[in-house]
Amino acid sequence: MRAAVMRNRQLVVADITAPEPGPGEVLVKTLACGICGSDLHALRHADRFVEAARRAGGAFVMDLSRDVVMGHEFCAEIVEHGPATTRTLRAGTRVCSRPTLIRREGPRTVGYSNDTPGGYGEYMRLTEALLLPVPDGLATEQATLTEPMAVGLHAVVKARLGSDDAPLVIGCGPVGLAVIAALRLHGARPIVAADFSPRRRELAVAMGADVVVDPAERGPWPSWREAAVWRDASRAPALPPWIAGPAVRPAVVFECVGVPGVLDQIMAAAPRGTRIVVVGVCMEPDTIYPLLGISKELHLQFVLGHTPDEFATTLGHIAEGRIPTTPLITGRVGVEGVAGAFEALASPERHVKILVEPWRA
Amino acid sequence: MRAAVMRNRQLVVADITAPEPGPGEVLVKTLACGICGSDLHALRHADRFVEAARRAGGAFVMDLSRDVVMGHEFCAEIVEHGPATTRTLRAGTRVCSRPTLIRREGPRTVGYSNDTPGGYGEYMRLTEALLLPVPDGLATEQATLTEPMAVGLHAVVKARLGSDDAPLVIGCGPVGLAVIAALRLHGARPIVAADFSPRRRELAVAMGADVVVDPAERGPWPSWREAAVWRDASRAPALPPWIAGPAVRPAVVFECVGVPGVLDQIMAAAPRGTRIVVVGVCMEPDTIYPLLGISKELHLQFVLGHTPDEFATTLGHIAEGRIPTTPLITGRVGVEGVAGAFEALASPERHVKILVEPWRA
Repeated sequence: MRAAVMRNRQLVVADITAPEPGPGEVLVKTLACGICGSDLHALRHADRFVEAARRAGGAFVMDLSRDVVMGHEFCAEIVEHGPATTRTLRAGTRVCSRPTLIRREGPRTVGYSNDTPGGYGEYMRLTEALLLPVPDGLATEQATLTEPMAVGLHAVVKARLGSDDAPLVIGCGPVGLAVIAALRLHGARPIVAADFSPRRRELAVAMGADVVVDPAERGPWPSWREAAVWRDASRAPALPPWIAGPAVRPAVVFECVGVPGVLDQIMAAAPRGTRIVVVGVCMEPDTIYPLLGISKELHLQFVLGHTPDEFATTLGHIAEGRIPTTPLITGRVGVEGVAGAFEALASPERHVKILVEPWRA
Repeated sequence: MRAAVMRNRQLVVADITAPEPGPGEVLVKTLACGICGSDLHALRHADRFVEAARRAGGAFVMDLSRDVVMGHEFCAEIVEHGPATTRTLRAGTRVCSRPTLIRREGPRTVGYSNDTPGGYGEYMRLTEALLLPVPDGLATEQATLTEPMAVGLHAVVKARLGSDDAPLVIGCGPVGLAVIAALRLHGARPIVAADFSPRRRELAVAMGADVVVDPAERGPWPSWREAAVWRDASRAPALPPWIAGPAVRPAVVFECVGVPGVLDQIMAAAPRGTRIVVVGVCMEPDTIYPLLGISKELHLQFVLGHTPDEFATTLGHIAEGRIPTTPLITGRVGVEGVAGAFEALASPERHVKILVEPWRA
């Protein structure tokens, strides 16, 4: 099959052997697959990614001397059922799936693995039990957004928001936009979001942000403080006399950038007791000053991925039109266009999500 | 008054002006004051400490070109009441207090401040409303342990331990020992604790650790896993078939070392979903690999100090003999001995807590 392959730390187009479905697995034809920022990081920092994964104890195990087909935000069509399958969904059915293969020896990541090709190739194998049929009437391209949007839902669930918490989203790339969409569905408002890109701030508003901030003009915290003032003053805790200004609600920050230094900036500027949810995937080492965390008793929750329930819920939200996903897809390429798309995605003004359509003529 | 003063980033003995109590404040005579590891860090990394405090927004503001008298683990005797005091406790009463001065313009730290001398000098001024009388029959030296032991209680409270959580304490200096004591009082068992020093491992057992580990021989996690196996197998969640070995309870790690690199080691070795409570005060920059946190959805809670309730509760525990504090005090010095004591405390075999007795002949 044709695929965009990570080989010798480069993306090349190659003909490789199509995967064969094992017990409980199906062979699918990739209809479309979104390019994730983590794939850009994984290509750029491949050795660090593999080393950190090894130290973390075994997720995302890749041998970089062998081919890897990335791509984990896919919509596909069932081609053939492997042995020991129930065939509940027939060949020809469009499906989504969490990018995981469940095998007796343990889960395997679809897309960051040598043996489980992802959606940048014509075929994949998937675990039958994880397949979700795409509702009729939902466009394939919208269905590919299930995975990235589920990441936002998961982050918001893990944040365990209280009714008084006031969110701040740092970074409005696909991850930040997914978090904004999930916050809006959760009802946590006002939503304050910051990004240097005007285009991304526009999209943040489209996804449900109430206030957007250009950090080049003004740090995000003054805007957050204005937005986070208690509307019902009777619910605000009494402030000691030496604290000027109105009381503000508890801060929950979503770090959706994933670049070294951002966590330190947040830790320096955040109010006492802030909860920071780290959603952006930083694959490089990062420097923090623990004394900042200690002196303000900050709280960090690192999050990854989504649960099966969150994934299915998100597909339902998209199918029902509860997430305004239409403006997010900004480009389409075939396998030969993947390397170029990785470069184009570096510019936040032009692109949000580029879809790979491996069968595109 | 005579005091051990931090001057030009050195500890020297000097005669300085005694503080005067302001409204709501009392002048006290320092009976004894423990030397805290944070003071060692603050002397060694004074500029970093001040810079991080400035970035964090104003706690611990010190001008290093001026004198600082450190010392925040004290027992003192009331000498004189300032204006606007209630005089509920009479002159001559032995007292403990959280090391904070409450002023109209905001709280001031006792001991990390130019204007609020701490317990390494003959006199201090304290806020009357924060004073707790030391119960008759409780030795002054035991009362000085209230502050460091309250740090352990606060860390355990902030950990919000569930009944199934299995604790691991990394580092058995005074902070780790305080955490062990608080875990034991909380009933969270078994308590696994790790330290390179045989003497400190002995003390960990004395304070209530069930299992102690020498990390030079074997990392702490295998011992933790053995200890954290579910005793009541019916309560353990079902393991997927690819996970070998018995199910273990959720891990809550207390980082009580406060040296760069320790957090990274914990993040690399901790099981998925581990909660890490950062109690050790690291004043240097530290490198973490966010991907470790992300891929295992780790959770970090930084903590500092204690609440008034936790402080009072701890004094009660010590007075009632519920914390075996006797082995913790390993030395006593006058003000002229403080610099030497700071050096002696570098060896974990000889010392845990050295008391400064400013009136010692």
